[in-house]
Amino acid sequence: MVYEGRLRFIGVVESKGELSTIKIFSEYEKKLSSLNNFFHLIILYWFHLQDNEKERSTLQVVLRRHTGAPQVNVFASRNPSRPNPIGFCVVELISVEYCILTVRGLDTFEGSPIVDIKPYVPKSDAVPNATIPEWVNTGIKT
Amino acid sequence: MVYEGRLRFIGVVESKGELSTIKIFSEYEKKLSSLNNFFHLIILYWFHLQDNEKERSTLQVVLRRHTGAPQVNVFASRNPSRPNPIGFCVVELISVEYCILTVRGLDTFEGSPIVDIKPYVPKSDAVPNATIPEWVNTGIKT
Repeated sequence: MVYEGRLRFIGVVESKGELSTIKIFSEYEKKLSSLNNFFHLIILYWFHLQDNEKERSTLQVVLRRHTGAPQVNVFASRNPSRPNPIGFCVVELISVEYCILTVRGLDTFEGSPIVDIKPYVPKSDAVPNATIPEWVNTGIKT
Repeated sequence: MVYEGRLRFIGVVESKGELSTIKIFSEYEKKLSSLNNFFHLIILYWFHLQDNEKERSTLQVVLRRHTGAPQVNVFASRNPSRPNPIGFCVVELISVEYCILTVRGLDTFEGSPIVDIKPYVPKSDAVPNATIPEWVNTGIKT
């Protein structure tokens, strides 16, 4: 059993706003336009500001943005301080130009490294009626 | 700009079937029952069989399971051979007992290390009407 893995970042968030831009490093750029087949993408990114031993030791969290939320195991939260600081986000793809992706809905920061990009496939990835705790709805978008 | 990250695996797939079991390592087990607040989880796992230089150098793929699919950039695919061999799957949570999660719909192998678990939140994660290329529908579930 292996206990560690090594990531090589494939790009970086260049700008953040209603529309955000991601620069893909040149070694991964070939045929990047094939992403245009999809309207939505899964972005896995690195919470680089949380990549330190203290934040990666976070195992219990209270979700202060959600009134009434209990203290929970970190894996029952989307908290960026967690053992592996990987963020997950579904974005709308606006355009692909050379190595620059323009997307809508990215919830990370400028400078965040990108770990992976995958096409979003609704039949396996979308569970629109998934049940969630009441306190998730009392807070802002997680 | 940092170009590498280090993962510490948090668990392992113990058995695979219609229902699969995931063992969470003991250091992460406290309050794991708080996952019971959710009916669906996002599982990030490690394609450990693809964690070698040859498979991680895969940048272009032809999706042979999908008739008529073109050669595409690996990030336009869910191919397990990719620069960072992280798998993504949405599963239904059946039960949590001590350090064992029983889930339905896990698409990995016995022995696959687990990278992260997150609650599935439909309002940010579900895009049921996302448009996809025709050839995605000609193949088996991605």
